[in-house]
Amino acid sequence: MPTFAECAARNRARYENELFDFLRIPSISTLPEHVPDIARAADYAKGQLVQCGLDSVEIIEGRGHPLVYGEWCHAPGKPTILFYGHYDVQPVDPIDEWHSDPFDPTVRDGQVYARGASDDKGQVLANIKALESLREAQGEFPVNVKFVIEGEEEVGGKAISEFVASNSERLASDAALVSDTAMYMAETPTICTGLRGLVYTEWAARGAERDLHSGLFGGVAPNAIFGLVELLSRCKDAEGRVRIPGFYDGVEAPSSAERSSWASIPFDERAYRRDEVRATALTGEPGYSVFERLGTRPTFEVHGISGGFVGPGAKTVIPAAAVAKVSARLVPQQDPARILELMRSFAKANAPEGIEVEVRLIHSAPATLAATSHPVIRTASQALRETWGRETVLIRSGGSIPVVGDFQQHLGIPTVLMGYGLPDDALHAPNEKFSLRNFHMGIASTGRFLELLGQRTGA
Amino acid sequence: MPTFAECAARNRARYENELFDFLRIPSISTLPEHVPDIARAADYAKGQLVQCGLDSVEIIEGRGHPLVYGEWCHAPGKPTILFYGHYDVQPVDPIDEWHSDPFDPTVRDGQVYARGASDDKGQVLANIKALESLREAQGEFPVNVKFVIEGEEEVGGKAISEFVASNSERLASDAALVSDTAMYMAETPTICTGLRGLVYTEWAARGAERDLHSGLFGGVAPNAIFGLVELLSRCKDAEGRVRIPGFYDGVEAPSSAERSSWASIPFDERAYRRDEVRATALTGEPGYSVFERLGTRPTFEVHGISGGFVGPGAKTVIPAAAVAKVSARLVPQQDPARILELMRSFAKANAPEGIEVEVRLIHSAPATLAATSHPVIRTASQALRETWGRETVLIRSGGSIPVVGDFQQHLGIPTVLMGYGLPDDALHAPNEKFSLRNFHMGIASTGRFLELLGQRTGA
Repeated sequence: MPTFAECAARNRARYENELFDFLRIPSISTLPEHVPDIARAADYAKGQLVQCGLDSVEIIEGRGHPLVYGEWCHAPGKPTILFYGHYDVQPVDPIDEWHSDPFDPTVRDGQVYARGASDDKGQVLANIKALESLREAQGEFPVNVKFVIEGEEEVGGKAISEFVASNSERLASDAALVSDTAMYMAETPTICTGLRGLVYTEWAARGAERDLHSGLFGGVAPNAIFGLVELLSRCKDAEGRVRIPGFYDGVEAPSSAERSSWASIPFDERAYRRDEVRATALTGEPGYSVFERLGTRPTFEVHGISGGFVGPGAKTVIPAAAVAKVSARLVPQQDPARILELMRSFAKANAPEGIEVEVRLIHSAPATLAATSHPVIRTASQALRETWGRETVLIRSGGSIPVVGDFQQHLGIPTVLMGYGLPDDALHAPNEKFSLRNFHMGIASTGRFLELLGQRTGA
Repeated sequence: MPTFAECAARNRARYENELFDFLRIPSISTLPEHVPDIARAADYAKGQLVQCGLDSVEIIEGRGHPLVYGEWCHAPGKPTILFYGHYDVQPVDPIDEWHSDPFDPTVRDGQVYARGASDDKGQVLANIKALESLREAQGEFPVNVKFVIEGEEEVGGKAISEFVASNSERLASDAALVSDTAMYMAETPTICTGLRGLVYTEWAARGAERDLHSGLFGGVAPNAIFGLVELLSRCKDAEGRVRIPGFYDGVEAPSSAERSSWASIPFDERAYRRDEVRATALTGEPGYSVFERLGTRPTFEVHGISGGFVGPGAKTVIPAAAVAKVSARLVPQQDPARILELMRSFAKANAPEGIEVEVRLIHSAPATLAATSHPVIRTASQALRETWGRETVLIRSGGSIPVVGDFQQHLGIPTVLMGYGLPDDALHAPNEKFSLRNFHMGIASTGRFLELLGQRTGA
C-alpha cells in the first residue's frame, strides 16, 4: 500500500490543475453580478469534497450564498476535526495593476497568481487534498472529519454563523482546523493563536441639501467632504493613536511569555517595510513593536472614500454628500457592539457644524485568542515541525476570521489556525499569489496533523 | 416704428422657445463624449448672433472648443461694447437628484429648469435678444457691438484667453458687458464689481506600492486615504481659517465705503441659510460677515475625493492611492502662481510619513476688481434702476470669471458684470433654473443700457 506522502507526490500535477480550475471561477461574493460564479464555485467545492472521500456532501442553500458541507464519521473513538474554508474571493479592483488576468491562474517562479490563490482557495484545497491523499493511501481517514466551506467570508455574511449556531450537534467536534492565515515567513511553520476582530462601517456625511457652486457659496456653506475629512482626521492622531474616547478601555498587553517568544523570532523591520509593505515608512502607535501593533493592538482604518466631482477636469462644486468605509480591528477585550457605539458617539460629537454623519454597521466580529497549551495546538505544532523540519512559531494575526468565534461560542471547541500563505501573498490586492511549494507542503502538513491525531483517542 | 420694448414684448414666446432649444443641447465641456454637442451649441449660438443682426459672424476653431464671434461696427463716434458669454455647461451629476431631465427644459412656477439655464445660456441669450429687439425697433444698434461666446468657461479652457491676447485690435472696445453673475436677490438690480480668482488643483496621494490587507498590515502600513485626509484637515482649521503659511499675505480688507454700503443691503442670514444654502449651519471665518466671506475672503475647498473601495459591502483594504480635487478662491492681492506654490510646499511639508502627495494644477485665474466710479458702471447702474424701478446695488461676487482679467490685461477695458441670475438658481448643482421674468427683464435692462450708452460719444 502506498504511503500518504507517495499518494500526495504522484498526484501533484493533478492537484495543481484542480487548484487552477477552482481559481478560474470569479466567485467575488460582494458583487451581485457574480452570483452565478458563486454557485459554480460552490459546486466545484462540493465535487472536491465528494472526490476526497467524504459522505453525504451537500450544498446548503438558505440566507446568502450557499454553504458546502460534507463529513466522514466512521472512526469511532478517534477525534473529530471540523475543517473550515471559504470559496469566495475579494473583488479585483484596481484591475489595471494586475500583471495577469486575476481569473486566469498564471505560474511565475513557482507561485500561482490569481485572485483567491492564497485567500482561501489554495489553502482550503490543500486541506481537501490532504484528505484525498490519506484516503487513497489508507482507504479511510485516521480521524472523523467534518468539512464546511462558505461563500461569504469576504463580505461578513451571516449564513455560516447561523449554520454553526443552529447545528451544534451535527458539527460537534474536538477541534476545528482553519487554513486561512499566513506563515510568519517562508519556510517557517506557524500557528496563529490570536485573531483580531472587526467592526466595519460606512460613514455617510451630509452638508447642504444639494451641491452648491463654490464661487457663489464658498466661504459660508458646509462642505460634506471637508466635514468628513475633519471628522476622520480627529479619530486618529498623527502618530496612529485612536482618539475615540474609551476605544482602548480594557485592552490588555500580551503576556511577558508571548512578548519574549515574539522577540526571539527573527525580524528585519527594514526588509519588511521594503519588501512586504513596500512603502517609504511604517506607521503606527509609538511604543509597540510591529508584531505588537499587528497582533495585539486595535486599528482605525479608512478603506474607501467618495464624494463630489472626481471626473477629468474641474467642477467647482461644494459637495452635499460624501461617504467613507471605515473599520476598526479589535483585540480580545474590545466588544464590537461597544466599539460601534463609541464610533457613533464620537461622530455625533465631532462632526463639524453643518455636517451630519451617520455611521452604519456593515459587519462585525469579535477577536479570538487560543490557549497555546491546548493539546490540539501542541499536536499541530509537532506536525508542522516534523513536516518542515523547523520549529513552529506561535503568533497572533492581525486579521479577522469571525467563524473562529462562532466555533468557540457554539461548539465550545478551539480552532487550530494553521495556514500556508505567505506575508507577501497580496491578499485583497492586485497580483494575489500562492506558493505551489506551500500548497504541497500544506497538504503534507495537514495530512501529518491528522495522522498524529489519529494516534490519540477522542476527547 | 415700434419701440424696443414693444419689439421685445411681441417676441416673448419666440425668445423663450429659442432659449429652450439652446438648453436642449447637452454642451457639457468637461466630458469628451459631448464634443458633438459642443459643436451643436456653437452652431446654435452662431445662428443667434446672425439673427440678431451682427455682421461677419464666424465660428473660430483652434485649441479646445470653438469660439463664436460676431460684430457690428457701423455707429462711428459711438461707444463700442464687447459682449461675452459661454455656451458650455457643467456636468449634471448627481443625475438622480434632478426633478426633470436636465436637457429637457421644463417650466415650473415661472422658472425654466435645465442645466445651463442661468449659467450661462439664459443670460447670454438675454443679451442677444436685447440686440435683436433693438435692431427690430431701430433698424440698427445704438452703439458698436462685438460679441464673443466661448465653450470652455466651465473647464477653464485657454482658447478665449489666447484669442483675447492675440486679437486686441479686433476686440478693441470701450467696455465689456458680461451677464454671467447673479442679482443680489430677487427684484434687486445688481452690478458685481469684484470677482474672486481661482487656483484649481488635483491632490494625488500614494502610500504603499499596492493595496494591502487591513488585517495583515493594519497598524503599520501607511494608508493613502487617511494620509490625504490628515493633510487636507491640516489645510484649514475648524473655524474655516486657511492654515497654509503665507496664504493671507497682502489680503486687504474692503474699503470702509464698501463695507458700509454692504451693511445697508437687507440681509436675513437665517433665511439665506435655510432657503439658499439649505444647510443646518453656515460656516466660515469668524469676524467676517457672510458678504465679506463670500466677496472679500479667499477659500480652501475640496470639490471631490476618491480612493479605495466604495462599492456595496465591504473590502478590508489599506488603499495605496487617493485623490482629491481642491481649489482656493482668491482675492485681488493673491497671485495664483504664488498660491499654487504655497499649496505645494504645504503638501510636501505636511504629508504624513509614508505618504507622498503631488499637487497638480488644473487651471487658475486672478481675481478682478472694478472701480465703482467708472462712467460705464454708472450708466449700467442707471439702466438697471430705470428698468427695475429699484436702486442698483454694487456687490462683489465670490465666483471667478477669468475672461474679465483678460479684458483688463489685454484690452485695457473695464467689465460691467450685470447678471440676471438669482442666488438660488442652483448653478453647478441639480435642478439649475433661470427665472423667465429675469430673462425678459434682462433683455429690457441690457437694451436700456445700450440706449443710454448710445446717447454718449465714444471714449
